[in-house]
Amino acid sequence: MAPKYAPNLRSRLAPLLLFLQTGFIVICALYAEFDPYAFMFGNTSSKLYSEFQDVNVMVVAGFGFLGTFLVRYGFSGSGFNLLVAVIATQWSIILNGYESWIQSRRILIDLKSLVFAEICTASALISIGTVIGKTNPVQLVLIAILEVSGFILNGWLLQTFFEVKPLYCAMQLHTFGAFFGLMLTWVMRRKGSETPFEKEKMDHKTGLFSMFGTLFLWMFWASLNSILVDEGERKLRIILSTYLALAVSAVAAAAVSVFTSPRGRINLDHIQKCSLSGGVAIGVSMSLVHRPWVAMTIGLAAGVISTLSLRYLKGHMLLAFGCHDTCGVLSVHGLPGLLGWLAHLTLQINHMVDRTTAIRFAVFHICTLLITLSLSMSMGVITGLLVKWSFWRPPQDRKCFDDQAFWEFPKLAKKK
Amino acid sequence: MAPKYAPNLRSRLAPLLLFLQTGFIVICALYAEFDPYAFMFGNTSSKLYSEFQDVNVMVVAGFGFLGTFLVRYGFSGSGFNLLVAVIATQWSIILNGYESWIQSRRILIDLKSLVFAEICTASALISIGTVIGKTNPVQLVLIAILEVSGFILNGWLLQTFFEVKPLYCAMQLHTFGAFFGLMLTWVMRRKGSETPFEKEKMDHKTGLFSMFGTLFLWMFWASLNSILVDEGERKLRIILSTYLALAVSAVAAAAVSVFTSPRGRINLDHIQKCSLSGGVAIGVSMSLVHRPWVAMTIGLAAGVISTLSLRYLKGHMLLAFGCHDTCGVLSVHGLPGLLGWLAHLTLQINHMVDRTTAIRFAVFHICTLLITLSLSMSMGVITGLLVKWSFWRPPQDRKCFDDQAFWEFPKLAKKK
Amino acid sequence: MAPKYAPNLRSRLAPLLLFLQTGFIVICALYAEFDPYAFMFGNTSSKLYSEFQDVNVMVVAGFGFLGTFLVRYGFSGSGFNLLVAVIATQWSIILNGYESWIQSRRILIDLKSLVFAEICTASALISIGTVIGKTNPVQLVLIAILEVSGFILNGWLLQTFFEVKPLYCAMQLHTFGAFFGLMLTWVMRRKGSETPFEKEKMDHKTGLFSMFGTLFLWMFWASLNSILVDEGERKLRIILSTYLALAVSAVAAAAVSVFTSPRGRINLDHIQKCSLSGGVAIGVSMSLVHRPWVAMTIGLAAGVISTLSLRYLKGHMLLAFGCHDTCGVLSVHGLPGLLGWLAHLTLQINHMVDRTTAIRFAVFHICTLLITLSLSMSMGVITGLLVKWSFWRPPQDRKCFDDQAFWEFPKLAKKK
Repeated sequence: MAPKYAPNLRSRLAPLLLFLQTGFIVICALYAEFDPYAFMFGNTSSKLYSEFQDVNVMVVAGFGFLGTFLVRYGFSGSGFNLLVAVIATQWSIILNGYESWIQSRRILIDLKSLVFAEICTASALISIGTVIGKTNPVQLVLIAILEVSGFILNGWLLQTFFEVKPLYCAMQLHTFGAFFGLMLTWVMRRKGSETPFEKEKMDHKTGLFSMFGTLFLWMFWASLNSILVDEGERKLRIILSTYLALAVSAVAAAAVSVFTSPRGRINLDHIQKCSLSGGVAIGVSMSLVHRPWVAMTIGLAAGVISTLSLRYLKGHMLLAFGCHDTCGVLSVHGLPGLLGWLAHLTLQINHMVDRTTAIRFAVFHICTLLITLSLSMSMGVITGLLVKWSFWRPPQDRKCFDDQAFWEFPKLAKKK
Repeated sequence: MAPKYAPNLRSRLAPLLLFLQTGFIVICALYAEFDPYAFMFGNTSSKLYSEFQDVNVMVVAGFGFLGTFLVRYGFSGSGFNLLVAVIATQWSIILNGYESWIQSRRILIDLKSLVFAEICTASALISIGTVIGKTNPVQLVLIAILEVSGFILNGWLLQTFFEVKPLYCAMQLHTFGAFFGLMLTWVMRRKGSETPFEKEKMDHKTGLFSMFGTLFLWMFWASLNSILVDEGERKLRIILSTYLALAVSAVAAAAVSVFTSPRGRINLDHIQKCSLSGGVAIGVSMSLVHRPWVAMTIGLAAGVISTLSLRYLKGHMLLAFGCHDTCGVLSVHGLPGLLGWLAHLTLQINHMVDRTTAIRFAVFHICTLLITLSLSMSMGVITGLLVKWSFWRPPQDRKCFDDQAFWEFPKLAKKK
Repeated sequence: MAPKYAPNLRSRLAPLLLFLQTGFIVICALYAEFDPYAFMFGNTSSKLYSEFQDVNVMVVAGFGFLGTFLVRYGFSGSGFNLLVAVIATQWSIILNGYESWIQSRRILIDLKSLVFAEICTASALISIGTVIGKTNPVQLVLIAILEVSGFILNGWLLQTFFEVKPLYCAMQLHTFGAFFGLMLTWVMRRKGSETPFEKEKMDHKTGLFSMFGTLFLWMFWASLNSILVDEGERKLRIILSTYLALAVSAVAAAAVSVFTSPRGRINLDHIQKCSLSGGVAIGVSMSLVHRPWVAMTIGLAAGVISTLSLRYLKGHMLLAFGCHDTCGVLSVHGLPGLLGWLAHLTLQINHMVDRTTAIRFAVFHICTLLITLSLSMSMGVITGLLVKWSFWRPPQDRKCFDDQAFWEFPKLAKKK
């Protein structure tokens, strides 16, 4: 059978990118300025910078290489990640400048806006994890733009109507990203996708590239969780809790993976993904974690749930709902995010003496979750319907999970 | 010949991990707390954090990828490293809390305890370098637990009976780890292991993964050496000395490698391992290095000795003693550690005017080395005898250096 | 055809390295000391350290892995990079100590000298990008020594005769390095090199290793540009400008790459190299960039020019002049450097009210460029003539771009 080429993206991708980029520049020319007073807190900025770099490494290299595990999809995994990340970050900076724009008609940019924008970007990159391999870069860019807008809207709603603290809103990135992504991939499901894609597999070398992404996410997760917290005892506590939770979830992932394997083998995919689940769960609950064993227990629960879900639930989701989740985002970000939410609720109620306040808080806490879930899922459906449109020229089934659909293949890239 | 499967670890690894992890959580629940006063030195913590991350990168990514050079052992090299590291770190935090437990019946955890725990972990990872490929993860975890206990005991002995400073004790990690590992691999030697293992080789791609580990160790070594030193002229001197020693040992490794090759080729293995020897040697002697050329000379000597030993001594050790040292730990950590000890002795005696004091110091210095060596070697023998036990189901010779013994192999890991 | 071996480097490389290294140690023993007063600014040093590590990562791992894209040249790409980097850094420390030597007959070494030396080293590594694959390590070391000397001479000339600020001199590293390298590769051109080398290509795995280098350069570029600037509003502005310029040039590279491809495919080489061009261009002009959109526009222009040049100009240079530029240094560092210079000129003139001052400044600015260009190009020619000498035993055409010429090949590196 003669190979059919993947659709030509020249007339879609180039105009889209140039349009978006020119738009961002025009908006910035009209409104954006570097914050002239940020230097007054020069000291803080300087400390912030090294943590910003940690988060930057997570977003650019961590997520980028995490997506290289597919045997023929490494260029796309890392290359599209960079492309999507820089667009989402620029768009987030602009959207987050809304507040300062209201006050002074200027979008003020400082290191903190960049940090916050990267957190929004991380949320978009989590969503994209569900559809990677089955989409083209045009679709990925659109998804990122919409996801970031939804995430920022969600934070704005929570802050305005529920007076939720910005830190807690930011930590919804996992829950929001995961459920957005799940609905997205469900809406975008293809006929016959219950059977595995031919090229959707890992090999020995790509597994190591992916390990590299995992480790960089794992190592710098403490920076992600603590970056929005000011210096002091609380920050230190968050750093230590995050480390402990991640350590325990790595152990739990290995234990559950080997225990659920009849031949007693570990699955690298479980190690790479579920080792991170402790960081997700602790991220949502960390402000109430005051003792090491609490952090460790949350990490243990997250690791166990995440690994079990990746082992059993993922295949079930595909068969029952046709919901194909390339990176196991439900297991890694979705369920641990819910677990963290539950831990936060339990810890908060435990702290309270008065029963009435406790019930009031529980209702309030359930509301914030429901808003996040319903907004993320409805935005996911809308985004899915939009990007499903064949105008965007998605790759055929046979060209899924294949770099050849999008890249001038290296063998031909011989220098002339 | 039909392939015989490697032993099933389900009934060994999963219970062991869960037992240890539950134990750690219970101990922490009973005794551990985040240090409530650590925030008082918030400023210091914040500076410490970026250095902690450097050391964390060394332990998790550096050692992890250094172990991926074996052509079919990359998953194990990086995956087991993470597993062992998080268990050893948790255990070290608990053991190091002994002192504060004596005082207040509480194990206080702050960033410094985490840093110190990671240094102990590094010592365990060095030991494991001798047996990697010939052991299963159950054995590795046991080795790490025992090595870390021994290393902490050694530090405690030196501090209590010889009033050695904590920094110097910590810097024994190379010597202790190397000689522990050498005895371990000697005790665990297999019949017929003088002939090379079939799968114990590097290829073009795994060599690059391993290079990645080397470079991250190389770059952040200055952080490892200086992290326990307070801000000031001394810290700066240690950073600069470490950089210079590492730079010179990289040059020395290349020069010696090409010089000892009849066809004038460089061996990547020498570059990857011996470039680090300068950091080991300077680590032990750094507090007395006051001029750049001293650091450079120590780096030169370490690079030359290390490369010569890796080229000639390693094979000899195998043939003469059956002591198979997968990562060349003797050459990279053992001999340079002894060299650093010698440099320290020489520099100290040079500084002294009085002959009596000099002799007294020399005796004292020799005693600390002897204690470290005898404790590490005896602990190595004991550990070797324990983990040799076939109850732990070590891999057969034919399954050594093979990921397939422990991992659900990627080709079969196709998503359903 | 029987394989002909590449020339034996034993009698060239080993003596050269030992001679240089011994020389450096002797010079340091005679003159160099750690700066005893650097600790007075302990606070600054400590902040500087984490930025130094960012730059160190760029030089050692970033450039190192960027050079691994060639399918059979990964060991050389990363290994020789380390070797060249440590030699060039030591030599730069010594040369940069000239000034303090004049004053006090001592070369004072502190963290700042190390940072400055690494910037000089980066300049040498850029030059080497043009000849990588066609040279042996002996030649690379000589090139680095000469390039670094030229670059430091250039800075000294500009500072002494034109009172140019050190920051601006340092930022000439791209322009100086690129044009030095271009002349070098032109002088060293081989007969028949218009036809492609057999082994000069990328494959799927090496492309990912190279991506790793790209991403680390991309992420830490803000540290490179801002490290010489003191804490404060200006530093923050430079960090943010650099991030924005890099983000936009990444988008531009993708857009132009897909637009200029008839089949609408992106070229990974363009993404990897041209995404960095924004950092180069902004580096030269950053001190006058006061608004975000200016940084973004510079990034856009750099990305477009760089990608177009890599797509079309590179092949043309080879055919018309026989100027074979392995890493596309002209496109990535040369042209964006000139663009940055032009942006700097335009912005400066825009700021000026008085026409006479503007013209005077323009003349002055053109002079600094001409000096840099003529010095770099003439040094490049001289270096080329020197290292072309067959005494250094360059590899034959058939052994170009092949690790086997220099490395004990892994298949044979089986442990005994």
